Amino acid sequence: MGLFFTLEGPDGSGKSTQIKRLAQRLEENGIRYRTTREPGGTKISDGIRALLLDPENGEMTAKTEALLYAASRAQHVAEVIRPALSEEIVVLCDRYIDASLAYQATGLGLSLDYVRELNERATEGLWPTRTYLIDVPAEVGIERVSKSRGTGLDRIEQRDLLYHGRVRDQFLQLAAVEPHRFCVLDGTRSVEEVTDLIWEDVRQFLHADK
Amino acid sequence: MGLFFTLEGPDGSGKSTQIKRLAQRLEENGIRYRTTREPGGTKISDGIRALLLDPENGEMTAKTEALLYAASRAQHVAEVIRPALSEEIVVLCDRYIDASLAYQATGLGLSLDYVRELNERATEGLWPTRTYLIDVPAEVGIERVSKSRGTGLDRIEQRDLLYHGRVRDQFLQLAAVEPHRFCVLDGTRSVEEVTDLIWEDVRQFLHADK
Repeated sequence: MGLFFTLEGPDGSGKSTQIKRLAQRLEENGIRYRTTREPGGTKISDGIRALLLDPENGEMTAKTEALLYAASRAQHVAEVIRPALSEEIVVLCDRYIDASLAYQATGLGLSLDYVRELNERATEGLWPTRTYLIDVPAEVGIERVSKSRGTGLDRIEQRDLLYHGRVRDQFLQLAAVEPHRFCVLDGTRSVEEVTDLIWEDVRQFLHADK
Repeated sequence: MGLFFTLEGPDGSGKSTQIKRLAQRLEENGIRYRTTREPGGTKISDGIRALLLDPENGEMTAKTEALLYAASRAQHVAEVIRPALSEEIVVLCDRYIDASLAYQATGLGLSLDYVRELNERATEGLWPTRTYLIDVPAEVGIERVSKSRGTGLDRIEQRDLLYHGRVRDQFLQLAAVEPHRFCVLDGTRSVEEVTDLIWEDVRQFLHADK
């Protein structure tokens, strides 16, 4: 099985930028890898993503949202992540189950156990080798997203600061409960510093894997 | 709470025709009712329906399919069915949880307990007052659908006869386990006869409800 790395953090924490930079380092080191993201990552999951993020779908219930994320993830794991891992390809994924625990469970008031079990079943228990949590205060993240995005915020980004604060707190709690899986990074540091810190950690796994 | 009636049966069993005819009888008797169907019934659920039935989505896994049905149903129950029932409106629904137990669990080899629990959570335990199972042999149903449909079969109808046979058997088993909720009708009888039988049964509930 290949190594499965996920990046998590509030919106605007810089995950996508870091994934691109990490991909470049893997490339330079001749390591086979695949980058992917959630929600999405397959044709079917992209169709689900469109429903999830459409600001017109304001009437979507918390449960529907959690089930759609789980459906999208089930397809993504079966079609992309597991096949890559079984070919020893390193997978870098932008968001995964932890995001559902933060955004759907805590953020929307669903039970953490319910959302965890739903996703455990959907992925047949596939958890990441290592999860990089890029932590930024909710207001910093949302401000960054508002500034950088030309097209307006999606349905989930549009939620209020209190919601995004709960999401951030939940991410930090998840990391505290599983310190061996999580590596927490201060997302207010420079992009270069964050990449260097993650890469240093990734390298240890690459060496151990040889 | 209003009365919640569902119609189930293999594809081509004549559910939609019966729902129209039952709606007419309710209308004639001045009873407030609402007809709806699954997958679908709300804007979001119709978006999910399009993903589920698209013949291009052949790579969809059984789990993704079950989760999408549950997501669609969660939204449908919260947005349409519960609000109608709480206003004492009679709801006639074309397919519900039993369809997932037959088509996704038995049909695709997922565990019956898993699919039942998934849907119990998604609907917060809302089961129908009464379920009319219109039984026809799988080959009869599929032949009817092929003949009547101008546009070709959807992704689920396209599955082979063995699959549709398993679905039919599962419907009959579900009815055997819950004889008080299910009313099984022979779908090879005339449309008029089937309507009369269902209507006779519906009337008893309407009277008891007064």
